[in-house]
Order: sequence, then C-alpha cells, then structure tokens
Amino acid sequence: MDATKEEINIALHEAQVAFLSYKNTSGKKKAELLRAIAQEIDALGNTLVETVMRETNLPEARVISERARTTGHCRMFADLVEEGSWVEARIDTAQPNRTPAPKPDLRKMLIPIGPVVVFGAANFPLAYSTMGGDSVSALAAGCPVIVKAHPAHAETSGLVAQAIQRAITRTGMPKNIFQHLYGKSFEVGQALVNHPLTKAVGFTGSLAGGKALFDIASRRAEPIPVFAEMSSINPVILLPDSLEKDFEKTALLLAASITQGVGQFCTNPGLIIAQDNSALEKFTTKLHDEINKVLPATMLHQGIADNYHKRLDQTLSQQGVKVEAQSDSKASSMQGQSLIASVPASEFLKNHLLAEEVFGPFSLIVKCKNLQELHAVVSHNSGQLTASVIGSEVEIEKHKNLFNVLIEKAGRLIVNGVPTGVEVCPSQNHGGPFPSTTDSRFTAVGTDAIKRFARPVAFQNFPHALLPDELKNENPLKIWRYSNSEWGKN
Amino acid sequence: MDATKEEINIALHEAQVAFLSYKNTSGKKKAELLRAIAQEIDALGNTLVETVMRETNLPEARVISERARTTGHCRMFADLVEEGSWVEARIDTAQPNRTPAPKPDLRKMLIPIGPVVVFGAANFPLAYSTMGGDSVSALAAGCPVIVKAHPAHAETSGLVAQAIQRAITRTGMPKNIFQHLYGKSFEVGQALVNHPLTKAVGFTGSLAGGKALFDIASRRAEPIPVFAEMSSINPVILLPDSLEKDFEKTALLLAASITQGVGQFCTNPGLIIAQDNSALEKFTTKLHDEINKVLPATMLHQGIADNYHKRLDQTLSQQGVKVEAQSDSKASSMQGQSLIASVPASEFLKNHLLAEEVFGPFSLIVKCKNLQELHAVVSHNSGQLTASVIGSEVEIEKHKNLFNVLIEKAGRLIVNGVPTGVEVCPSQNHGGPFPSTTDSRFTAVGTDAIKRFARPVAFQNFPHALLPDELKNENPLKIWRYSNSEWGKN
Repeated sequence: MDATKEEINIALHEAQVAFLSYKNTSGKKKAELLRAIAQEIDALGNTLVETVMRETNLPEARVISERARTTGHCRMFADLVEEGSWVEARIDTAQPNRTPAPKPDLRKMLIPIGPVVVFGAANFPLAYSTMGGDSVSALAAGCPVIVKAHPAHAETSGLVAQAIQRAITRTGMPKNIFQHLYGKSFEVGQALVNHPLTKAVGFTGSLAGGKALFDIASRRAEPIPVFAEMSSINPVILLPDSLEKDFEKTALLLAASITQGVGQFCTNPGLIIAQDNSALEKFTTKLHDEINKVLPATMLHQGIADNYHKRLDQTLSQQGVKVEAQSDSKASSMQGQSLIASVPASEFLKNHLLAEEVFGPFSLIVKCKNLQELHAVVSHNSGQLTASVIGSEVEIEKHKNLFNVLIEKAGRLIVNGVPTGVEVCPSQNHGGPFPSTTDSRFTAVGTDAIKRFARPVAFQNFPHALLPDELKNENPLKIWRYSNSEWGKN
Repeated sequence: MDATKEEINIALHEAQVAFLSYKNTSGKKKAELLRAIAQEIDALGNTLVETVMRETNLPEARVISERARTTGHCRMFADLVEEGSWVEARIDTAQPNRTPAPKPDLRKMLIPIGPVVVFGAANFPLAYSTMGGDSVSALAAGCPVIVKAHPAHAETSGLVAQAIQRAITRTGMPKNIFQHLYGKSFEVGQALVNHPLTKAVGFTGSLAGGKALFDIASRRAEPIPVFAEMSSINPVILLPDSLEKDFEKTALLLAASITQGVGQFCTNPGLIIAQDNSALEKFTTKLHDEINKVLPATMLHQGIADNYHKRLDQTLSQQGVKVEAQSDSKASSMQGQSLIASVPASEFLKNHLLAEEVFGPFSLIVKCKNLQELHAVVSHNSGQLTASVIGSEVEIEKHKNLFNVLIEKAGRLIVNGVPTGVEVCPSQNHGGPFPSTTDSRFTAVGTDAIKRFARPVAFQNFPHALLPDELKNENPLKIWRYSNSEWGKN
C-alpha cells in the first residue's frame, strides 16, 4: 500500500524528533547499533536469501555475497564512527594578545545534516537498498533514515527493515531513526523529497528518476542535496599492442564483466573503444564465441527487461550499428539476451543516442580509424562513474595523455581491469561528473560516503564543558585532529 | 562595457584550455603564484586604497585592513597547497591473494573541478571580490577563475585584476587561469553560469541574486554547484542574569557590532532576543545612548542605501514594531542611519517579514515574556551564518539546550561575543543552512573553502609512474595520508 501524504508527514516529524536525540549519540553507541543491524540481517538466514531470489531472480551465490557486502559495510561504518576521526575536527586556540585584534578560540567539526530519504535500488536489493550504502552512511553520520522500499523487492525490503528495528530496540536507540514506507507511485517519492523536514536524499537508479528527484529538491523553498547515482556507460579503451598480444584474455575479461548479473550493474562496461585493425577483429571473434555461450538469464523485473529490449532495438536501428555477437535467443520477455554491437567512430561521434546507457548485458564497440579518432571518441563522452584503459606498460606510458582527458570525465580510472567489482574501502570513489551522478564531489561507496550527510559547524569561545567531546582540549576520544596547524591525536 | 555573449564564450574556452595545463601544476608552483599575487596587490599601494575609498565610501583604516586580509588569505592558501595534505589522499594497496576475490590497488585524492565563475561582492571590494575568498580558494585548488567585476567598484576590480595578471606573468603560469569581465546586466551573470564549460560558481550578495544564480545552475542540462552566501540576521540571545549585571558592557559590544562598517556585513547582528524585564530596559537605554552618538555614514552605493531605507520603512510599519534608538538623521540619501527597533515576541512569531534580513546598521530586539517564548523565537528562525548567546557561565550551562536548537540553524555558534569579525583560519566555518547559503556543507572562509572547488578521483591498479605524486608509495611530497587504515606521512 502506498504511503499517504499524512503518513509521510508523520514519518518526517517522527524522524525529526528522533534526530534531536540521535544526533548527540556517541560514535561508540552508533557502532553498537550498526553491528547489531549486521547481526540481525545475518540472523534472517535463508528466509532473506530465498526472498531476494524470488523477488529479483538473482542467483543464490550473488545474494549471499551481496548480503556479506551489506553486513560488511555496516561493520566498516561501525569501525569508522567508533574510531571517530571522520568528523574533521579543527582547533584554533585563542590568542588574546594578538594585535591588532585578539584571536578568538575557534573549533570546528562535522555534524549530521538531518533526516535523510533513501530510495532503494532495483539492482542491489540488499547492498544499495534498505540497509544499503546510503542508509548505513546516513545512520553512521547521525541522521535518521526514511527508506522508500523498491516496489520490485518490497518483501525483501520489509524483512531487512524488521531486522533494523530489532537492532534499534536491542541497542536502545530512538525507534524512529529508521522508518520504512512503501510507494509505487511517483507521488510518494515526490512528497518525501518535498517535505520541509527532509534534509538530503539518496537515490540509485535511472537518469530520468534521479534527475526528477534532483529537480524537485532544487525547486523547494529550501533546496536540499540529492545524491543520485544514475547513468554511466563506463568506457573501456583497448590499446593496440596489448590487444594484439592479449586479445583472448581481454575478450574473456570483458565478456565476463558485460554479462555478470545480466549486465545489471551501474559499472557495466557499455562502451569499448579501440583502433579498427586485425587485433580488434580477433578480439571481436573471441568475444563473439564467449557471448554465444552465455545462457539466457532472467532480469530483475519486467520493467527493467522491457526497457532493455526497447533501448537495444533503438540502438541497433541507428546508422552504422552492427551486431557482432549475441547469446541464445531469449526464452521469455523477462530474459536479457547478451549482445555486442559495433559502430564506426565517425557514426558514434555524430549520434548522441549511442553514448547513452543501455542498462543490461550490452556493449558497443566503437571502431576508430586511428589514434586521433580514438582521442576524439574519448573526449566525446559525458560524465562517467569509471573509465578503463587496457594496454601494455609501455603503451600506457605512451598514451598517458588519455588520462588527462579521462580524469575530467570519470570518478574512477582503472588500468588493466574492468569496472565491475566496486571495492568497499576508504579510497573508493563511486561517483563522477553528471550524468553519472548529481554531485561529483561525493562518493556513494566507501567510508567517505558519510560526508554526504554531514555539515561543518564552528564553535567560537565555547565554555570547555559545552564543547562536543571531539573538540575538547584533552581529546577524550583520541581522534585525529588538525589543531593549531598540526595534525595529531593531541 | 558589458561583456558580450561571444566574449563570455571565448573566456570560458580560454579558461578550459588554461585548466588542462593548470590542473597539473604542483602545489609549490601554485604557492609561488598566490604569494606573487599578494605582493602585486601590496605593490598597488595608495592607488588601490584611494580607488577603493572613492568607489565604496569605506574609510582608509578599513580598506587597509581589508587589503591585509586579502593578501593574508593568498599567503594562507599558498601555505596550504605548498604543504599539500588538503587533497585527502587515501591509499589501499592490493591484496592479490584475498579470497573470495583479490583486492585491487586503489588510491584516491581530490582534483580541481574546472573553470569557476566568481561574482564580486559589494561589501568586500577586496576580501570577497576579485581576489577574494572564492577566487583564491579556486586558484589554490587548481581551477581557472573568471571574475565578473562588481559594477559598484569596477575600477578597484580592474586594478586587482591587473595585479593578478602581473603575478601570473611573473611566475610563468597560463595567462587565462584568471580572466576579468564587466557586466552590469543580469544577462552577463546568467550567460556565465549557463556556459557548459563553467563547473562551479562563487557568489556573495543578496538572497534574490544568489537564489537566481542557483536556479539557473540547477536547471542547466548539466547542473553545477553554486556557493552563494546570501542572507543572515545572526540572532544574538541575551540571557537575563548576565544582562542584569553586564547590560552596559553588552550594549557597548552590540552597538559597535551593529554600526561597524555602516552595518554592511553578512554577519551583522540583526536580531537581539531577550526576556522583557528591567535588565532589558536598562540595556535598551544604554544601546539608545550609544546609537545616538553614531555619526551618519555613507553606504557602499546608492542601490544598497535605497534598499536599506526601503526595508527599514517596511519593517517599521509592521504591527508591534517600535523604534528604540536611532542615530542623527541622515544627511543624504546615500547615508545609512543606525536604528534599533523592538517588537513583542508574539508579533515576531506571527510575521515572517520580521525574520528577514535588513542589510545595514539595524537590529530588532525581540522581547520575550518568558523563557518558553524565547525558545519559540529561537526555533522560529531559518538558516543563519551565526548564532550567539551572551550569558554568565552558570546561565550558559543552564540553557545549554538552546544550542541543541541553534546548531540546526547556524554554521557558527558564538558564546559571549558578537558575530562580526570573521577569523580566517582552518577552524572557521562561514556558511550555514539555507537561506544563509545554498550549500551548508561548505565554508566560504578559511582553508576548507578549497573543498568547494575539488572532487575526488580514484586510481585503480595504476602503474606507479603514472600516479600523481600525492599517491606514490614513497610519498615524495611528504603529505598526510590515510594509508591502509593508518594516518601518517608514510
């Protein structure tokens, strides 16, 4: 049942009340909560795995590994907030005798931004949904979370929400720091983003969906940030010498990356850019053989499958586009047939539609006459989550100028690897220039994702007892701070 | 002469070309540039001081101190980028034998975002204009800057722009990392913000102006961030015991803060909140005496003076508003008469207009019947740059719940001080919730202002030679990094 306007209004008011106490919760207590959530998710056992499999058609191994990623990021953020240095504490002590004017005592740290609305993602029913990267980083920051369950896995979402509630009860946290609403209609999302008490939004999904939420948020009386992770074709550039030598290995690597999870990853390599020569021919033949072997597989839900087939037909009907490989015919309308097409660079450069995402197991090979054309294709692309270059050490060095262009287009640059497989760690950046996200200055994966839901506050001339522990002279939490222009734990 | 669309287009293309080399400039070279700019501004000597005085009506002492602040922040950012740790380097080295999947080598740092458009501020012809806080932090980050000169001090702006150009030539930097355009019409600003190569905007000025630029930027095909510092009435809460004892000292402190620089500061205390009792009466009488002594002074320009008088008339005509003190009648329409009014809290709470900024030497005393009403008034306010509480140590402790509310409203909390006088240092936060700024997550003053113009990029499995120096194993720049979950200079 879709949440009503009244229910949404109550949810936000309850979130705000919960916020006023939760925001002052210590890192240690928040860590207990996040670890309890991980335990409760694990305790759902096979019920959760079976529910995800039934709702999303994802295979068991994938569901189990996604669950591990989800509980893993709960524990990672628990460690982060327990350690505590993430608040970026800065201290400048007073200089009362400074001339011409005395210097006041000034200290600064990050505090939570307020209630955060999270939209579950279709393609990550666990790791980017109810207790996904947005929810966990918002809760870690000290923000209450309101999740709108993804309609395609509403039961999974409900199970995880119950686990979270059990963890909240068990650790004695305010009940309404986490709330779970249902909504199939656009109006539910709209009302959540428009509510005056909502302070930030997390979203993973389509460009149309993310951009619509961004537009609503920007047009509010008080605009709020939207972190939408939307659309990326993740170009992979194949340099010629390495392709000549390793065409087989490269084809295997790319075939696996393109078809993994029926291509339903935001980091799926949707564009392969290479010089049109015999090496590329051999690579394409090998890729053809590999793709042909792929069994038909059911996509996440009918809407995603329909959209894939529509975008595929549209792409294949463009000038110059040629099918290079396809897996066995699909058995049902819910299945995603793996497909590789190619197009001459000259056509690609004329047709913006070919640079737009086809969400599914598809990749387009752009054949370039020479290196100049290859550079033109690279420059032509808009913002991406990732950009990869595959080449020998000598070639990579020779073509290092490519990175000078790619770095303006992407949030993560990869050498001799594929974009799928997003490591969850402090140095991860899952983000990038528009339209891959709505804010290239933040990551959606890894510890720094917490920064999206925090803002700095300075404390001037505060009585010592009223300072947050993070800013007290004796550094009771033993965190890293920048104090009087020195880094340290003093 | 207003820049034409064609000139704006050429400027952005030239900025982009300059960016492609400037972005790779070392911190050491950028530091040389910023120090040379400080020297060249100093070398303008009396010519600059006289020009500012003539164009803005600001007194000599203020102009000289503002110049020192401007060259001071150039040197502060020079030190910051020379030291280099601001890039937030993170390193996670590979674990090729990890199971179930090997961990790749992943490293991350901040890189400059691209060409930045800066709008000079009327009230800070030096420190927040041509080489103000926006320009200096963007240049420090590695972004080219295009300044639209403020029409009210176009000659000052031109002089500073020439000084910057001399510093660029002297240090051998790309000429177009700094460009200077003129524009009185809104269309010039609009075209600058709309240009596809513009990647961020810095603005200090009115709510209407800042919000208009934000709206343009959000509605672009590729939305970009706007850092607009706009509107704040900086509430000052006077607690009763301290007011009873120190009404005289407090009145002197506030009179000076309200009238300083003809009240033309974004941190001007425009709202005084106190319990209506004999202490407040004595305070108001003393404030009356102080304000009466203030000589009429000329405002920055006719537009600001006209707006001040209009907003003053509008405020004074509201239900319940009473004049408590005013300086000698203004001698000319360009002069800003200092004025203090009061209003019962019950009226204030009903009338949103009274919570809006009156830019000039004005403050409104909100008289509260009791502490409950005082809390209601504090909660009623929208986002602010600052909020101050003046009280005895015992009182502050007793009323510490006030800060739980104020922290949601303001970017800087002050105890026993006034909001004017913004210290430029690492722990400063000059920012706050909307409408004080368009993005509460960033500061416009202090070293962290650089973060506005940078975005993270991750490097996965990069050949060591191609990594930026900041991320190389041997840490050649000796910066602070977070490496394999340890902070250090290793």
